[in-house]
Amino acid sequence: MEQRRVLVIGGDAAGMSAASQARRMCSAESTRITAFERGPRTSYAACGLPYLVEGLVEDPADLVARSPEEHRERGIDVHVGHEVTSIDLDARNVVVRDLASGEERTEGWDDLVVATGARGIVPPLPGIESEGVQQLRTLDDAAAIEQAIAAGARNAVVVGAGYIGLEVAEALVHRGLAVTVIEMADVPMAGNLDADMAELVAEAVRDAGVDLRLGAAVEGFESVQGRLGAVVAEGTSFDADLAVLGLGVRPNSELAKAAGLEVGPTGGIVVDETMNAGVPGVWAGGDCVQSTHRITGEPVVIALGTHANKHGRIIGTNIAGGDATFPGVIGTAITKFADTEIGRTGIGEREADRAGIDVVTSRSTSRTRAGYYPGGSPITVKLSVRSDDGVLVGAQVVGGPGSGKRIDALATAIWAGMTVDDLAMADLSYAPPFSPVWDPVVFAAGVADTKLHR
Amino acid sequence: MEQRRVLVIGGDAAGMSAASQARRMCSAESTRITAFERGPRTSYAACGLPYLVEGLVEDPADLVARSPEEHRERGIDVHVGHEVTSIDLDARNVVVRDLASGEERTEGWDDLVVATGARGIVPPLPGIESEGVQQLRTLDDAAAIEQAIAAGARNAVVVGAGYIGLEVAEALVHRGLAVTVIEMADVPMAGNLDADMAELVAEAVRDAGVDLRLGAAVEGFESVQGRLGAVVAEGTSFDADLAVLGLGVRPNSELAKAAGLEVGPTGGIVVDETMNAGVPGVWAGGDCVQSTHRITGEPVVIALGTHANKHGRIIGTNIAGGDATFPGVIGTAITKFADTEIGRTGIGEREADRAGIDVVTSRSTSRTRAGYYPGGSPITVKLSVRSDDGVLVGAQVVGGPGSGKRIDALATAIWAGMTVDDLAMADLSYAPPFSPVWDPVVFAAGVADTKLHR
Repeated sequence: MEQRRVLVIGGDAAGMSAASQARRMCSAESTRITAFERGPRTSYAACGLPYLVEGLVEDPADLVARSPEEHRERGIDVHVGHEVTSIDLDARNVVVRDLASGEERTEGWDDLVVATGARGIVPPLPGIESEGVQQLRTLDDAAAIEQAIAAGARNAVVVGAGYIGLEVAEALVHRGLAVTVIEMADVPMAGNLDADMAELVAEAVRDAGVDLRLGAAVEGFESVQGRLGAVVAEGTSFDADLAVLGLGVRPNSELAKAAGLEVGPTGGIVVDETMNAGVPGVWAGGDCVQSTHRITGEPVVIALGTHANKHGRIIGTNIAGGDATFPGVIGTAITKFADTEIGRTGIGEREADRAGIDVVTSRSTSRTRAGYYPGGSPITVKLSVRSDDGVLVGAQVVGGPGSGKRIDALATAIWAGMTVDDLAMADLSYAPPFSPVWDPVVFAAGVADTKLHR
Repeated sequence: MEQRRVLVIGGDAAGMSAASQARRMCSAESTRITAFERGPRTSYAACGLPYLVEGLVEDPADLVARSPEEHRERGIDVHVGHEVTSIDLDARNVVVRDLASGEERTEGWDDLVVATGARGIVPPLPGIESEGVQQLRTLDDAAAIEQAIAAGARNAVVVGAGYIGLEVAEALVHRGLAVTVIEMADVPMAGNLDADMAELVAEAVRDAGVDLRLGAAVEGFESVQGRLGAVVAEGTSFDADLAVLGLGVRPNSELAKAAGLEVGPTGGIVVDETMNAGVPGVWAGGDCVQSTHRITGEPVVIALGTHANKHGRIIGTNIAGGDATFPGVIGTAITKFADTEIGRTGIGEREADRAGIDVVTSRSTSRTRAGYYPGGSPITVKLSVRSDDGVLVGAQVVGGPGSGKRIDALATAIWAGMTVDDLAMADLSYAPPFSPVWDPVVFAAGVADTKLHR
C-alpha cells in the first residue's frame, strides 16, 4: 500500500491542529504528515503577545504550545524556515523554498491543508518603516518592543483602538510608558461594540491614564536618522519613541488565489462546511479563510485562535475519513482593559442595519454580585432582538470583574435561537457572590422583552 | 367601581414581588393591595445570611431589600407581625391575627397570593432545643449566632453539608472558630453533585481546616444547664458551644392544605404555569410551591430567591390581567467554598437513574485561563448526556475563581435543548485572561460527544 501524503502549509493553530488530529486518527504506516512553516516556530499563541509585553507572561517560550521538536516526536514532519511559494492543484504538488539555503524543491500531496494565517494591516503612511514602528504579531515583534522599552522608550503611540490596540495600550501603561491611542473612529472597538457601549470602554481607557484620541487619522511617522520620534495625526505631532500598529489583520490568501482556489469578497479563502476549499483533498482553515455568520448568513473573516483550532480539528478529522463540519460563527469575542471586562456576540446595531435585519435594542445596568455582597461592580448588558420574532441576535457586555464571561450564556442563547422572552425566565444560577437575585443576563432579557412588546 | 382587593400572605421575595408587580400595573383607585407578614420584616435576603455571619456584610439592614415603610410608600398596605391563621376559599377571606395584641379579624380578598415560604428542617433529636443550637433562616438567627461568637464560642458543629451548611461552615472558619461539619451522606452536597464531583468539594472543605465527618448521623445534642456543650454523632462526642443546622427546608404549605388547596408529593403547593393554585384568583409562589423540572417532568421543590422573584413577578402580572407563565426549572445552582466555586444544573447520575433516563456522563479538567496567563486554576466539568439523542441534560462544575458562573452557558444550552455535538462547536468567547483556546465548556462538550459516539 502506498503511503498517503498530507501536506500542511502553515505551522500555527489551524495547520498544526489539522496535522495533530490527522496524526491521532491515521497510522504512521498509512499516512505521512508534513508541515511547512516559513517562520522559526510552530503553534505559538499570538493572542498571548500583549501579556508578554505587559510582563504577565515572563518567558516567551510559555507562549509556544508545541515546538517543532515536540510535533516531530508525535510523528509530524515539521520544517520551519520553509516557505511554500506555489501550489499546483492539477499536479497536486507545491514548490517549497528552504529560506536558509534558498533551495527550492517540489513536494507532492494527496491532501493539502492551507493554513497561511493573516498579516497585520500596514497602511502606506510616510515613515511607517521607521525603526520603532512595530506590529505585534510574532514573538520577534514582542522582543523588538521589549528592546525598545529596555532602551528607554518613554512615549508610546498605539495606532488603532481595537482588541490588539487596547491590549497593547494596557500592557505599555503597565510597563510605565506614557501611552497615546489614536483611533479613526469616534469610539474604541468601533467594529465590535455599539457606540453607547464603546463609550464605557473609552472611559476605562482614559481612567487608566491613556491619552485616547478618537476620530483622528494618523498621517505619518516622523523619524530622526531612521528612528521614530513622533507620530503625526490631525496636524498634531505626538512624541513617540515607540509606535505599535493595532489596525487589524488581513488573510494571507494570495498563495491560494494564485493556485486557483476561490477567495471571497472578505479576502478569505472560500471553504464549505467541511473546510474543503473547493477541490477534493484541498482544505483550508484558520485566519486565512472566511466563515459564515449564522445570523446574517454573510461571509466574515474572524482571526481568532479558537476558530483556527476548531477548523484544524475538523480538517484533521475529515482527512482521516471522518465527517466533521464547522457550523459557522456568531462573532463572539471577549477582552479586558484594566478591571473592565468586555464581551460581545452576534450582531450590533450597525451590523443589523447593514444586514437589513430589523432589531429592537435595549440596555440595562445591574451588578455582578448581590448589592450587599462586597466586591461587586456595575455591569451593562445591551441586547439586539429581532423585531418580528423576538429572537436574540446580539449581545454586548461591559462591566467590572466577573462581567466578561457572562457573554457565553448570551452566545449560547443566540446559538440556540432562543427568544428573549424564553431567556428572561431561564434557570440561570444565583447566589450572592455571583449575581443579584435577577442575574444580569436574565434581567437584560426581561428588559428587552418588555421593550419589544411596548 | 368597587375597589379590587389583593391579599398577600407572606412578606418576602415571592409575596412582595407579586404585590410590587401588581402595584406597578394596577392603579391605586382600582386595586387595594394588602400584605400580611408574621415576622418583623419584609423582603430580606435570606441567602445573604451566611455572609452576614462571616462578616462580609456588616449591617443586617443591608440584607433588607425593601422595608415595610418603603413598601407602604409604594402603595402596598403591609402589616408585619400579622399571621394568617386560616383561608376560606368559598367565602374568599382569611382570618389574620395581630401577634402583638392577639386580636383576630377577617379580611376579604378578590385575589389571594399564598407566599408562605419554607422552614428549616429540625429533626426530633435529643437536646436539639438547647440554647446554642441554631438554624440560619432569619436575621434573628444570624444575631443569635453573632451573640454566641461574641460570648466566646470556640467550637462549632454544622449539621449537614449542603449549600447552607457549607456556607455557614466557611463563615465560621472565617470568624476563627474550629468547625466540624457532620453529614449523613458519604460526600458533601450529595443531593446536588455526583460523588466524583462532590469529592473535589470535600477536598476544598478539608483544605480550609474544617473537620468534615461524612457518613455520620447526628444522634443528639448534649447540654449543660440547657446550654449546648457537645454534639454526638456515631458514638463520638464533638465539643461544641455552637451548632448550626443546615438540613434543608420544607415548604410551609399547611395553611394552604387546610384551606383545601392541593399539595403535591413534594410537600409543595400545586400550581399551574400561571402560578394559579387551582382556584380562580388564588395564586401561590416562592418556597412553598412545587415547580416542574423540565428534564424529568417531575414536580420539585427548590427554595431559591431567584425562582421566588420570578414567581412573584408572574403572579403580579397575571393579577393585573396579564398573561405570564413560569416555564419550570432545571435545578441550576451555584455556591462557593473559599476559592472553590461550584455550579450545577439539570440532572446528575442519580437523578437520571431515578427518572429512568439513560445518560452517558463525561468528566474533563482544563483551566479557567490560558495556561500561560497568571492566576488561572483547574476547572472540572462533568456532563450528563441523553444516550439516545445526545441532548445535554445535566452539568456540574467545580473549580477555582471564574469557574462557577460558567454553569450559565451550560444551563442555557440545557434550557434550549442543545446537543453536546452542537455545543462542542458553539462560538463561545476566548481570550487568554478568560479561557484556554478551547473554553472548558466547549472542551467538555467535545469530550462528552466523543464518549457518546465511542
